[in-house]
Amino acid sequence: MNISFFQELLQSITERGRQLLESREPAPGNAQALAQACHKLISSHGEASGVALAQQVLCAYRDCPQDQQKAFFDTLLKDFAPPHDALAQACQRYLDEPSSANTTALFEASEPPRQELFRRLNQAPGGTAELIAMRRLLLQELKANPELAAVDHDLQHLLASWFNRGFLVLRRIDWSTPASILEKIIRYEAVHAIKDWDDLRSRLQPSDRRCFAFFHPALADEPLIFVEVALTRAMPGAIAEILETKSPEGKPADASADEPDTAVFYSISNCQDGLRGISFGNFLIKQVVEELAREIPGLRQFVTLSPVPGFRRWLDSLGEDPQLGATAAELLKALKPDAAPPPRTEQPMLALAAEYFLHARNGAGFPLDPVARFHLGNGARLERLNWRGDLSASGLRQAAGLMVNYRYELRQIEKNHEAYANQGVVTASPEVRKLATLSAKTKR
Amino acid sequence: MNISFFQELLQSITERGRQLLESREPAPGNAQALAQACHKLISSHGEASGVALAQQVLCAYRDCPQDQQKAFFDTLLKDFAPPHDALAQACQRYLDEPSSANTTALFEASEPPRQELFRRLNQAPGGTAELIAMRRLLLQELKANPELAAVDHDLQHLLASWFNRGFLVLRRIDWSTPASILEKIIRYEAVHAIKDWDDLRSRLQPSDRRCFAFFHPALADEPLIFVEVALTRAMPGAIAEILETKSPEGKPADASADEPDTAVFYSISNCQDGLRGISFGNFLIKQVVEELAREIPGLRQFVTLSPVPGFRRWLDSLGEDPQLGATAAELLKALKPDAAPPPRTEQPMLALAAEYFLHARNGAGFPLDPVARFHLGNGARLERLNWRGDLSASGLRQAAGLMVNYRYELRQIEKNHEAYANQGVVTASPEVRKLATLSAKTKR
Amino acid sequence: MNISFFQELLQSITERGRQLLESREPAPGNAQALAQACHKLISSHGEASGVALAQQVLCAYRDCPQDQQKAFFDTLLKDFAPPHDALAQACQRYLDEPSSANTTALFEASEPPRQELFRRLNQAPGGTAELIAMRRLLLQELKANPELAAVDHDLQHLLASWFNRGFLVLRRIDWSTPASILEKIIRYEAVHAIKDWDDLRSRLQPSDRRCFAFFHPALADEPLIFVEVALTRAMPGAIAEILETKSPEGKPADASADEPDTAVFYSISNCQDGLRGISFGNFLIKQVVEELAREIPGLRQFVTLSPVPGFRRWLDSLGEDPQLGATAAELLKALKPDAAPPPRTEQPMLALAAEYFLHARNGAGFPLDPVARFHLGNGARLERLNWRGDLSASGLRQAAGLMVNYRYELRQIEKNHEAYANQGVVTASPEVRKLATLSAKTKR
Amino acid sequence: MNISFFQELLQSITERGRQLLESREPAPGNAQALAQACHKLISSHGEASGVALAQQVLCAYRDCPQDQQKAFFDTLLKDFAPPHDALAQACQRYLDEPSSANTTALFEASEPPRQELFRRLNQAPGGTAELIAMRRLLLQELKANPELAAVDHDLQHLLASWFNRGFLVLRRIDWSTPASILEKIIRYEAVHAIKDWDDLRSRLQPSDRRCFAFFHPALADEPLIFVEVALTRAMPGAIAEILETKSPEGKPADASADEPDTAVFYSISNCQDGLRGISFGNFLIKQVVEELAREIPGLRQFVTLSPVPGFRRWLDSLGEDPQLGATAAELLKALKPDAAPPPRTEQPMLALAAEYFLHARNGAGFPLDPVARFHLGNGARLERLNWRGDLSASGLRQAAGLMVNYRYELRQIEKNHEAYANQGVVTASPEVRKLATLSAKTKR
Repeated sequence: MNISFFQELLQSITERGRQLLESREPAPGNAQALAQACHKLISSHGEASGVALAQQVLCAYRDCPQDQQKAFFDTLLKDFAPPHDALAQACQRYLDEPSSANTTALFEASEPPRQELFRRLNQAPGGTAELIAMRRLLLQELKANPELAAVDHDLQHLLASWFNRGFLVLRRIDWSTPASILEKIIRYEAVHAIKDWDDLRSRLQPSDRRCFAFFHPALADEPLIFVEVALTRAMPGAIAEILETKSPEGKPADASADEPDTAVFYSISNCQDGLRGISFGNFLIKQVVEELAREIPGLRQFVTLSPVPGFRRWLDSLGEDPQLGATAAELLKALKPDAAPPPRTEQPMLALAAEYFLHARNGAGFPLDPVARFHLGNGARLERLNWRGDLSASGLRQAAGLMVNYRYELRQIEKNHEAYANQGVVTASPEVRKLATLSAKTKR
Repeated sequence: MNISFFQELLQSITERGRQLLESREPAPGNAQALAQACHKLISSHGEASGVALAQQVLCAYRDCPQDQQKAFFDTLLKDFAPPHDALAQACQRYLDEPSSANTTALFEASEPPRQELFRRLNQAPGGTAELIAMRRLLLQELKANPELAAVDHDLQHLLASWFNRGFLVLRRIDWSTPASILEKIIRYEAVHAIKDWDDLRSRLQPSDRRCFAFFHPALADEPLIFVEVALTRAMPGAIAEILETKSPEGKPADASADEPDTAVFYSISNCQDGLRGISFGNFLIKQVVEELAREIPGLRQFVTLSPVPGFRRWLDSLGEDPQLGATAAELLKALKPDAAPPPRTEQPMLALAAEYFLHARNGAGFPLDPVARFHLGNGARLERLNWRGDLSASGLRQAAGLMVNYRYELRQIEKNHEAYANQGVVTASPEVRKLATLSAKTKR
Repeated sequence: MNISFFQELLQSITERGRQLLESREPAPGNAQALAQACHKLISSHGEASGVALAQQVLCAYRDCPQDQQKAFFDTLLKDFAPPHDALAQACQRYLDEPSSANTTALFEASEPPRQELFRRLNQAPGGTAELIAMRRLLLQELKANPELAAVDHDLQHLLASWFNRGFLVLRRIDWSTPASILEKIIRYEAVHAIKDWDDLRSRLQPSDRRCFAFFHPALADEPLIFVEVALTRAMPGAIAEILETKSPEGKPADASADEPDTAVFYSISNCQDGLRGISFGNFLIKQVVEELAREIPGLRQFVTLSPVPGFRRWLDSLGEDPQLGATAAELLKALKPDAAPPPRTEQPMLALAAEYFLHARNGAGFPLDPVARFHLGNGARLERLNWRGDLSASGLRQAAGLMVNYRYELRQIEKNHEAYANQGVVTASPEVRKLATLSAKTKR
Repeated sequence: MNISFFQELLQSITERGRQLLESREPAPGNAQALAQACHKLISSHGEASGVALAQQVLCAYRDCPQDQQKAFFDTLLKDFAPPHDALAQACQRYLDEPSSANTTALFEASEPPRQELFRRLNQAPGGTAELIAMRRLLLQELKANPELAAVDHDLQHLLASWFNRGFLVLRRIDWSTPASILEKIIRYEAVHAIKDWDDLRSRLQPSDRRCFAFFHPALADEPLIFVEVALTRAMPGAIAEILETKSPEGKPADASADEPDTAVFYSISNCQDGLRGISFGNFLIKQVVEELAREIPGLRQFVTLSPVPGFRRWLDSLGEDPQLGATAAELLKALKPDAAPPPRTEQPMLALAAEYFLHARNGAGFPLDPVARFHLGNGARLERLNWRGDLSASGLRQAAGLMVNYRYELRQIEKNHEAYANQGVVTASPEVRKLATLSAKTKR
């Protein structure tokens, strides 16, 4: 079908957003004046000129010094909370008669007025981006001022609803993507840093590389999350071969000309601090799997090549552990922080790594490793442990060079996810499970 | 700036939506099976394959016979309401200690689980459109089953948040708009019916005609609301001269070549029954005023040419009214349902019309006329009463041919709106106010 | 790849073209003033402001009364022909010494200055469309004034070069195509008239219908040629089943749900009179075959369902033909101009039709039937003769209801074309060849 | 109007072009095989499968070793020239009777068959780009083999017709342009080299910078020519202030906030060697002037800041010149190749520069300086001479640091151009003319 008309729809949103950023005139602001304007905005008075008023509030907020912005958060907490009397009354009524109508009335009375305020602020051109920036600061402030959690709760509640997966758009990022987007890919890459534009090109332009990002219509020039993919023959065990800079034609001189059978997700980065806690990665990986399967019918497996950010810290923590302590101590003695692990460490390290993934748990009963929690929670399976997978400085420092592959098999993910979510089961390949047995043997 | 990249973002949303509509295979469904699938969807189990599951639920719902769809509404009401015990407990805790944390907890406990269900359903391709269709049926069902209001409340709450003005996109509709959109303009026109494609063309193609619509990115081939505009010299008093079919070049043979100084909003139509109660018209008119002012600097005034749908009914109702009854009876005697009002009725009719607008009130203290409530609520001013403004069958039947102009003056709308919203003041031109005086005189 | 940037390129061309049509001010013109402006345009003087000057000339031309436009053609013929002395000299030099340089010089001397004039006129926004309109009038004038052939030769020469297949763009036409394009499809359809927008929709929207057109970047809102396609099971023999108005969902109630294996090109229409003699149909059919084969892998055959516009006239002409006259006379006696041919005529009609296609020749030794010349020249094969294929008024009048299928098999077209082009061989299916034998037997 | 549909037109062209580059399979080729395939392509045999055949020829050509490609040029020269006998006959006929028909016939007979060959090659996807690459090699080969000029004449003739200004598209280049285009801007910049992506950004992103390029629909990812523009207060005299890297917000810290009144064209670069001799710069500058005047109504003047590439060479050549030799010698003594000119040289240098521009001529009677010939030929006026305008290594080496401003005033350009083109008059500002007088005085 002819999609042009629909494509153009976004123009207005994007352009209206720019107006806010570009054309406004700075004006000094303070939390008190802001609060007044906000009260006007959610009152009936504000209805007729709501968009303009919302724009003024957001501009005034941006122009406030940061201490006033933080003071404004306090105002949001206290002045835009549900009015106590009305809420208490609604509670009482519900307790007296828990009818459907009283339940609805209670829900309405308990919704903090700041939610309506945020919704009205969002009416302004560029409002969504401003609210995300506001939450970014709020999250920083939260540590010093934990009571603001109630404000954050409301903001996150709304943003999660607005950034519902049904409103996200998957876009391929390639060498013909606008430079203004590409520079953000360079900036936001959080796993394997992109050195410069040539490095970027070598991740986008070769015919065996892909990059996909989620976007939201109201935030059209900002990726929300992106994933980098390499198409290979067989599952790779080391990141260096993936990141190696390649000729624009896409293949290092000695590359085999074989058709790829494996898609490797080797880097996934969240971009917007202000959307923390709203999860996109799960959806992104699954849609990219679908896209790639459609584009390249020869693909047989979809795997990651993932870092193990908590491994070294865990090793260090084993100390006097009765079962693993001795092995760990031996291993740590052999490892140097800035050198590849020596050959004889392979067997004990993989065994300990299997132990780390299969048995080491956090307080909630889930694996210690945050990357493992993400992929296992998505329903992936722990497929292979790769000794000397990442010999970069950070790879050695965090994980003694270890990397792992997780495998996404669409037919299995629901089962895997359920076992993981309900009982904390880590689904792993027989190979990895066998290594864990070795580890167990080692211990005793 | 280069807007193409951003424009393409919508493609995925739109295309994913189509998948749902086109590629699914019908399967018989019933409310009970639906409920089960919904429970799975909002449980942890559903996370890993949430999008696919949501899609299945929506497809199953669509394939249900209508009685099962209605039975499903009951399930939503009863099985997806907030769990009583937890909510009662949260109430009690709040009453005991109305802390910020307990307020938040109460808000969460009072949010019906069906809201989360709707959010998850929205993750499916085309989910938003399905939820709107669901609400359309729900609204019909509401009359027979008023308890469903709680379900409708939740659905409306979410849709209002998702269709926040910040996410709406204004698009000009013209003769190069896709036919698939244009046929919907023909279908949804609610004020002055569009007879056929030639009639449509005569409203879009002439250089002195404009049409604008709001769209939402997740519903990209469906207009939400649209307004038709004529650019004229001076404020028109009759709809016939506007609707007269014109040559493609845009001017009837005798048209003056003068530059327009007036933009006339002569038809505004809501398109989506399932979005009832979520107001777009206010925003639409104001943004179109801004767009036109930018495009055509010579425009001096922005007015409507509006129907008066309640006038005739009000006349009929005056009956024994001590003050107006006699005048009304005389007027009604002179009017024939299918003929233009005779000359001698002009004066008394305009006087009664002024009375109707300025003094006739509904139970809430606002004007009887629904179109008046809309425009006055937006901050417009009642500008002029036009005897013989609409001599079509429906114009005669509803309003004895009367039409009126409302005027939007951006600098006055906030003040007008405030006076109207707070005290029910109908802002009117001196001319109209004077007619009301005549009416008063007439009475005595 | 990201194609947006490149898509936007056309905007300027199209918009510049509109400027010419819309914003110019009419001014009376005459052939003499035009000629002066043209002389200036191709002189050095015109270089600096060539675009503006070209625009003036084209506007002046458009504003001329038609008799002055025709007078201007004479000017083009006489005043913008190659200067005799220089050309004679170049001839003599070449004859004296046929060197490469003298050949080039001769070519340059023989190129009429009006070619450079046309190239400069084309620099104006919308110039290409104006030159096509100019040629349209010129072609009409040619009958009365055959000497203008030299002017037409130059214009066609340039247009053929500019509308080189490498610059044409294939676009699918569907129900989401802009209405401004669709109304031209209605207007230009030349084979089976499109009655109205509903009829149009039934040719575009059903899932078993396709329409494709060639466009040129400089003429972006005008299709050059388009073809309508039906996707069917098996090769159809009658147009009625194809044109039958269908529900928007695309299938008449009794349609089989089978996947299509046949693409039927049932209508192909040239749109631009001013491009007469520049052939697009051959390229269009072949590219559409490629597109469809890619989109729908199940397609097994690509055929036409074509009219036979010369059949009835040929029948009428047989008269006293010693071999066929008697059969024809008998057949003609049985046929009524406004009724389907009676059953008993099937055998003789098909035999005569085979004779008509395989043996009836025009002066150049090619088949009499123009549609046959087109498809056979493209390398198609005459596949089947369909008695009662088109029982519409025009189908009966032109061809006594006969329609035929031509078949495009990509691997055979070069061979077929060659045999046809060199020796006039009509490649036909065994079935058709057998019918011709019957005809031969019939005769004797 | 809705331009989306028309924008999409280009997609096919571009994508078809990529097919040729990407999907073909290399095959060894030689000039002889190429010639055979070419003969087939222009014969009738090639018609049915012309596009595929053209594609094969172009691929075979690309896969030829370069010596075979050059041998192929010889084939084009000899085997695809007009057949002598037919041409001689056409000459004779014309000489005998110079009728319109005989003129046309002569033109046709003198058109070398390679023109038709080139047109058919252009039918292939990506054909236009291949022909441009072919001409690029041909131009190199021309020096060694001047007889190939006849082949080049034909290729240039066609390319000039195809790249007619009416088919070119102006596009703004900015920071949201695809990276694949931007890297070409870096590569093709010919005046003031772009060091890296940061340097590029500082020329595109600031609000007081612009860049525009011409594109052709059939070559959509290749700019043809581009111009870089700075928006300033007053006419600048030195390039350093323009090229200074700026913050993304666009203004160096000390920039005045004044609105710009001057557009400075400070760099203009042709991109395609294979289009040499086909002039775009004239059109580009004039359309950019129009665009900017529309966008920024406050602009009062449009000037260049241009290099003077021939100045230093001319100084060196003065030697024993009776009038200027002494001054030049003195000046040259003071100049050091790698240092800014010393203060006392200002007066004599500007005087000699005025002399250089106003009086120094090449064999054809036009100014020696090639950049001067370009701008004066476009109708610009020599506005100001800037001592110490470019103190970069190349600026000192070529022009002893001198830069000049040319001024484009749309109402004057036709007059200026005419005086220049007909009589070699250099239009200069009174200031420059006065400096030339000083120079004259100096001499004597």
